[in-house]
Amino acid sequence: MQIDLTFTPAELAYCDLRGKIAVVIDVFRFTTAALAALEAGAAGIYVVKEVEEAIELRAKDPRLLLAGERRALKVPGFDFGNSPLEFTNRVQGRRIVWCTTNGTNAVTMAAAADEVILASLRSAAAAAEYLSARKKDCILVPAGLRGRYSLEDTWCAGYIARQLEGCAVSDSAQTAMCIAEHWSLRDLSAAQHGQVLLGLGMAADVEYCLALNSSPNVIRQDPLSGWCTLA
Amino acid sequence: MQIDLTFTPAELAYCDLRGKIAVVIDVFRFTTAALAALEAGAAGIYVVKEVEEAIELRAKDPRLLLAGERRALKVPGFDFGNSPLEFTNRVQGRRIVWCTTNGTNAVTMAAAADEVILASLRSAAAAAEYLSARKKDCILVPAGLRGRYSLEDTWCAGYIARQLEGCAVSDSAQTAMCIAEHWSLRDLSAAQHGQVLLGLGMAADVEYCLALNSSPNVIRQDPLSGWCTLA
Repeated sequence: MQIDLTFTPAELAYCDLRGKIAVVIDVFRFTTAALAALEAGAAGIYVVKEVEEAIELRAKDPRLLLAGERRALKVPGFDFGNSPLEFTNRVQGRRIVWCTTNGTNAVTMAAAADEVILASLRSAAAAAEYLSARKKDCILVPAGLRGRYSLEDTWCAGYIARQLEGCAVSDSAQTAMCIAEHWSLRDLSAAQHGQVLLGLGMAADVEYCLALNSSPNVIRQDPLSGWCTLA
Repeated sequence: MQIDLTFTPAELAYCDLRGKIAVVIDVFRFTTAALAALEAGAAGIYVVKEVEEAIELRAKDPRLLLAGERRALKVPGFDFGNSPLEFTNRVQGRRIVWCTTNGTNAVTMAAAADEVILASLRSAAAAAEYLSARKKDCILVPAGLRGRYSLEDTWCAGYIARQLEGCAVSDSAQTAMCIAEHWSLRDLSAAQHGQVLLGLGMAADVEYCLALNSSPNVIRQDPLSGWCTLA
């Protein structure tokens, strides 16, 4: 079992994803919010790259809910933004089409993998347990921030990698493990993306996203239909 | 003065390079070998992205020397490969067109910066001194390995960043500084790219490239002509 990691999704263009599980991580906030939505009872999440795609899908099926952000704020006309705190039992039994700047984009860029799962700090231990049981090569995919590096996503990836035993670990995954070892959870809210969210008054979101290992669930994308549900 | 860093050159597409000094680092081996060539008396180095461009340039000016590699080996028809040990006084007064998989590619991708310099472990302290004196925002650009992360290039970038005082440091540059702090120079030859070179019998190259701070020189690319010379 090999563990690899890309620092930004653009690096995926240089990776052979065949035979691998891609683990997309967007702590602030898509993969955290998607977990909240599914735990609140949503029937499934479908990710798209562009806002227009989400709007077109709803034109075909008006029962779909739309979620997502541009510049961290809810897209006009969407039902939800990207805050995990928005997803209450309103979403029970509903299917959600989701579009964000970083996370949903990373999911679409990892499509060549055999399997895609979504992880976050809340589900970090659960993701590690899932990967240990699957025993397949995996590539950790921090979603990043507007194409650039994200410290909290990389920390989460390194934390997951540190739970996996007896693996061959790439230089990039070892680097993430070093970050997870030497920096604390508290450092993550002081990092660039955390500061942006705090500046927008989203302290409750940040606190929710940083609750390490508070969920037993992992999200898995169905390779055929593309719909994401709890594994 | 701000210090930023891209983990792979593909991340440069998401950066605003205007007003910045880009510091391209390709420890194994382009920026190390280019330093060796200029210290051996070469009149200048011109980087190109494709082998064909180098051949076309020589067709126009037969006095040009050609250097570079594909899959770490000398390009057929070129005068030199990419080993720093090849560049003796044969190159004195000569201009060299250079094409490699990682380093020269990163230089061309950083072209939007106000100024491009090339650094390596041998010139790390000299590069830090140059940047301190210039007092401009800078972006460290590890050249990577076939589009992927390179540990030795990132280590070198982190080492340089650690010499710069009183700067605002991005999350990515802080990550590189953490790597340079917690890992030793010796770890770099055990990393992926070092192992490839050792497997090809290039132990002398690896040792030469890892000689930290053994040169007082920095390479600077002329923003108008594109020719690289000692600063």
